[in-house]
Amino acid sequence: MRTGIATVCLSGTLQEKMAACAKAGFDGIEIFEQDLVTSAMSPEEVRRRAADLGLSLDLYQPFRDFDGVEDALLAANLRRARAKFTLMDRLGIDTILVCSNVATATRSEDDVLTEQLAQLANAAGEHGVRVAYEALAWGKYVNDYEHAHRLVEAVDHPNLGTCLDSFHILSRDWDTAPIEELDAEKIFFVQVADAPKLSMDVLSLSRHYRVFPGEGQFNLAKFMGHLARTGYQGPVSLEIFNDIFRQSDVTRTAVDAMRSLVWLQEEGAVWLAAEGETQRRPLQLATLPRVPEPTGFNFAEVKTASTAAVEMLLGQLGFASQGRHRTKDVQLWTMGQARVIINEAAPEGSEPAIAALGFDVENPLLASSRAQQLLAPVVPRKSQADEEVFQGIAAPDSTEIFLCQGTLDGTAAWTHEFGPAPSGGRSHGQEAVIDHVNLAQPWQHFDEAVLFYTSALALEPQPFAEVPSPTGLVRSQVMDTSDRGVRLVLNLAPLIQQGDGEHKTFQEHIAFAVDDLVATARAAKKRGLEFLKIPANYYEDLAARFDLEPGFLGRLRDLNLLYDRDADGEFLHFYTATVGTVFFEMVERRGNYDGYGAPNAPVRHAVQYDVRHSAI
Amino acid sequence: MRTGIATVCLSGTLQEKMAACAKAGFDGIEIFEQDLVTSAMSPEEVRRRAADLGLSLDLYQPFRDFDGVEDALLAANLRRARAKFTLMDRLGIDTILVCSNVATATRSEDDVLTEQLAQLANAAGEHGVRVAYEALAWGKYVNDYEHAHRLVEAVDHPNLGTCLDSFHILSRDWDTAPIEELDAEKIFFVQVADAPKLSMDVLSLSRHYRVFPGEGQFNLAKFMGHLARTGYQGPVSLEIFNDIFRQSDVTRTAVDAMRSLVWLQEEGAVWLAAEGETQRRPLQLATLPRVPEPTGFNFAEVKTASTAAVEMLLGQLGFASQGRHRTKDVQLWTMGQARVIINEAAPEGSEPAIAALGFDVENPLLASSRAQQLLAPVVPRKSQADEEVFQGIAAPDSTEIFLCQGTLDGTAAWTHEFGPAPSGGRSHGQEAVIDHVNLAQPWQHFDEAVLFYTSALALEPQPFAEVPSPTGLVRSQVMDTSDRGVRLVLNLAPLIQQGDGEHKTFQEHIAFAVDDLVATARAAKKRGLEFLKIPANYYEDLAARFDLEPGFLGRLRDLNLLYDRDADGEFLHFYTATVGTVFFEMVERRGNYDGYGAPNAPVRHAVQYDVRHSAI
Repeated sequence: MRTGIATVCLSGTLQEKMAACAKAGFDGIEIFEQDLVTSAMSPEEVRRRAADLGLSLDLYQPFRDFDGVEDALLAANLRRARAKFTLMDRLGIDTILVCSNVATATRSEDDVLTEQLAQLANAAGEHGVRVAYEALAWGKYVNDYEHAHRLVEAVDHPNLGTCLDSFHILSRDWDTAPIEELDAEKIFFVQVADAPKLSMDVLSLSRHYRVFPGEGQFNLAKFMGHLARTGYQGPVSLEIFNDIFRQSDVTRTAVDAMRSLVWLQEEGAVWLAAEGETQRRPLQLATLPRVPEPTGFNFAEVKTASTAAVEMLLGQLGFASQGRHRTKDVQLWTMGQARVIINEAAPEGSEPAIAALGFDVENPLLASSRAQQLLAPVVPRKSQADEEVFQGIAAPDSTEIFLCQGTLDGTAAWTHEFGPAPSGGRSHGQEAVIDHVNLAQPWQHFDEAVLFYTSALALEPQPFAEVPSPTGLVRSQVMDTSDRGVRLVLNLAPLIQQGDGEHKTFQEHIAFAVDDLVATARAAKKRGLEFLKIPANYYEDLAARFDLEPGFLGRLRDLNLLYDRDADGEFLHFYTATVGTVFFEMVERRGNYDGYGAPNAPVRHAVQYDVRHSAI
Repeated sequence: MRTGIATVCLSGTLQEKMAACAKAGFDGIEIFEQDLVTSAMSPEEVRRRAADLGLSLDLYQPFRDFDGVEDALLAANLRRARAKFTLMDRLGIDTILVCSNVATATRSEDDVLTEQLAQLANAAGEHGVRVAYEALAWGKYVNDYEHAHRLVEAVDHPNLGTCLDSFHILSRDWDTAPIEELDAEKIFFVQVADAPKLSMDVLSLSRHYRVFPGEGQFNLAKFMGHLARTGYQGPVSLEIFNDIFRQSDVTRTAVDAMRSLVWLQEEGAVWLAAEGETQRRPLQLATLPRVPEPTGFNFAEVKTASTAAVEMLLGQLGFASQGRHRTKDVQLWTMGQARVIINEAAPEGSEPAIAALGFDVENPLLASSRAQQLLAPVVPRKSQADEEVFQGIAAPDSTEIFLCQGTLDGTAAWTHEFGPAPSGGRSHGQEAVIDHVNLAQPWQHFDEAVLFYTSALALEPQPFAEVPSPTGLVRSQVMDTSDRGVRLVLNLAPLIQQGDGEHKTFQEHIAFAVDDLVATARAAKKRGLEFLKIPANYYEDLAARFDLEPGFLGRLRDLNLLYDRDADGEFLHFYTATVGTVFFEMVERRGNYDGYGAPNAPVRHAVQYDVRHSAI
């Protein structure tokens, strides 16, 4: 499939955008008019620059408000179009996007539209360019791709075709199945965009909230499947208007964009396969090695220059030290199958922070290969000849993700690389697993992170929640696997807490699941653990909300435990104090409780805020 | 009028919120349940703290999903309500807000609702508290304030009344006139909120985008007028869920909130006066000294440690130096009635920035008094006994605003305080005025700024525009007077350009209007002015869009002039290079052109970005 992207998706100057697109591996680009108008490069220079970069210039866009107008305006519009056709000749672009009229149309009759589009097609023919006519979702008279296609067929001119844009089709909930009936020769261009399902007018949604495929909620797999069936062979190009992408680093965004097209091709191919299609379609959707979802967390790693505070918390929680690695500056702490690595190779003075996560996968090499084809940056990690080689990739927030060999019994072979545990070190070990990990995401990279974990790690995004905190709403996005072996929570902190956008200041945590939380908490209390102290008011509210047995409520209060209940089961949990930007949580899931104690999250945020502020 | 505010409007802990509300001068507050649940203060401590601060605790809120349920759930809900009634007794709060059911209701019949609300009223009566029942805009069966009131009247119990909330009424476009028909004795509480007119589901609008009165587009004057006519005497309290306010400085937000209630009372009183009402209503809407809108800019002030670059630009534009002030470290430069003060009293190394604006008003003392009653911070400016005393207030972005004595001929008496101009200094003066000033606003204070300029300076907000720039969309909010004597443009820069949120990094500018822009540009070019260089592509696009005479187009191109045209007239303008964070614009308005050349703004942003990046 020929990949493309509109320059309007990206930040920076036209030069910077073109360089980033080439670097990310796009075949071609669409020149957004404003990017040319505001550029110091002449059209000829743009053409040369594209050739030098190996980018084809596939589309000039947009040309607005041409059709359905009165005669005087039509003449002006044709004059305007001819000026752009001349410009396209200088750029070496043969196709222009003409959007259905949203502003100046007064004539809705199809025969008027056909007649006017025919005049445009004739003019285009004279200049040797092609017009791709697109139905905008909010077009005044033409807002449906089938209508646009009917008009194109009625004109029946070699220089007039349509442009299909998944946004304009799916934001209106138009059925995509009829795409198959379109004449592929008349599809001059295809644009793709995803979007969240927000209840908002489509114009606002379009202008601000489009996202790259895989970052929203449109069914693009089906769209691609139907498109492939038409026999279309042209570019499939991203056109994304997004407030965040417009201001974030152009090189990174271009990579994120390219990843979305790799993902999209696979989704289309999978959809076709599910429909029983085996033949190779002309669109040539590239596919990746398929990997099953990860089965669990292999480990979590905390990096810090000074390890004492983390060691103390883990020990008090019931973790046992497994000693130091024989060649690296890392320690291993375990509790059942929950493994925490403390990495001491941190710059002096740096406080504890979550630095890496290991995921159990069926085939680490294959999973790594897939992730790399999805443009995930590789993380080098040196190892001795006889040590397990970790396949590492970097997540958008810089967390290192290691793809580890999963085992049936949840053990990890690499643990033997650690020396013998100090005497008594393994004494108070209990059964435990990593239940979930909560990572803060920079605001510029939140959507990118969702696509990264979806495509490279086969996690599934769940509907997001918004949690009040004393410094604003925290957006919380759960990404998990079907059996909940992996639960990752991406947090978007309030802007005021985002620091410089790259350096994390928001707290993150690792949660461990145990069978008996009350026993775990009692033991931890005995060992002197500093619990996050829950206000008495919380327990009174709990008593008002749930009819709890007084003894049980008393135990919750005495141990600073939080509680939640829903139709599926119960949830008990507690938090430790924070060291650096890390804290730990212990949880017990009763019945089929599948959540995270969301009603309790505001309490945690408020108490943590209070602690932070009292400390200042 | 008794003023109030819900704690949910503000950031921080309950202690911090209460302190900020007291400091801003509120009579009372609503305790938002989550703020209590997450607080370490016991209910008794909250009660004492409020008493110490002189704040009354007027409402406990919210109690959700009580009504329209099946019997088993009703029993649980009554148990839950009684627990809260007991809590209210400890807090010393006599009224609780009960919202119409949005989730668990299955019974829609009015007689069922009446019967269940009667049980709630009886329980409330036993505990000596009052229930204020509110129709939420998205209530499942009750979403209209008149419906809620009918149910309350049907129950006819002294412990049951309604709560009116302007958001739930105006977001649904319910008519507010019938408020007058309500029994004031049954209105237990009134909440006010404003909101922008966004095409969005009301729930999302409510949870994220509510703003303080005067910052949105609801007709709250009429709401207040109808409310006053009922004879209601209770609190009028702000309940604003806003993503920004939730994370911005609590003390500032509380002041912004209080300002909105001062403004709201005046708006209500003015509405009643316009309806011919002269009698004093029991609600006792406080009013302020009325002042007419400002008639023009008196001056603009640029502050800098090193004045040479600004002096050079102004001189090249045709400004004449009027010399130095006799006692202050400032210079005056003029061109006709356009006055620019260069203030040298800046910290060493600080680059040029717009520091102050003078507005011509009819009565500076009265205008200053009004602004201070609207909680505008006073800016002290020392002056000698025989010098004009400037009445200064600080705008939310820290720009100093001076209220100056306007004159019929546009002159300013204080200019005599400057020494004689250097010889030749006044030679190339032409007629000019300050056309508009463009100020960047920190994202935390944008809404606050709109209310500030609306209430304290009688400017009118126009519909906002969004302008693409290479680093993201720039929100542009024009605030002006009816005769356009004052045009102020508030810019909300992309987050990435906001720096630390307090220190401005985004460029700002002062625009001057002249009669003959081409002559002005030619003269400036001759004096060596560094124009912002406009790309050739822009002029080709201009030729495609407008049928311009080639000679005219050539002049525009040669002089780096920008051009716009609409049904009302034409607009010519050019920009200077930037010094520090300031640049200047010269404009010529032809006919009745009333805009700012918005189609050209992306060109300016792109070229300025390019210049900035080339310099790095």
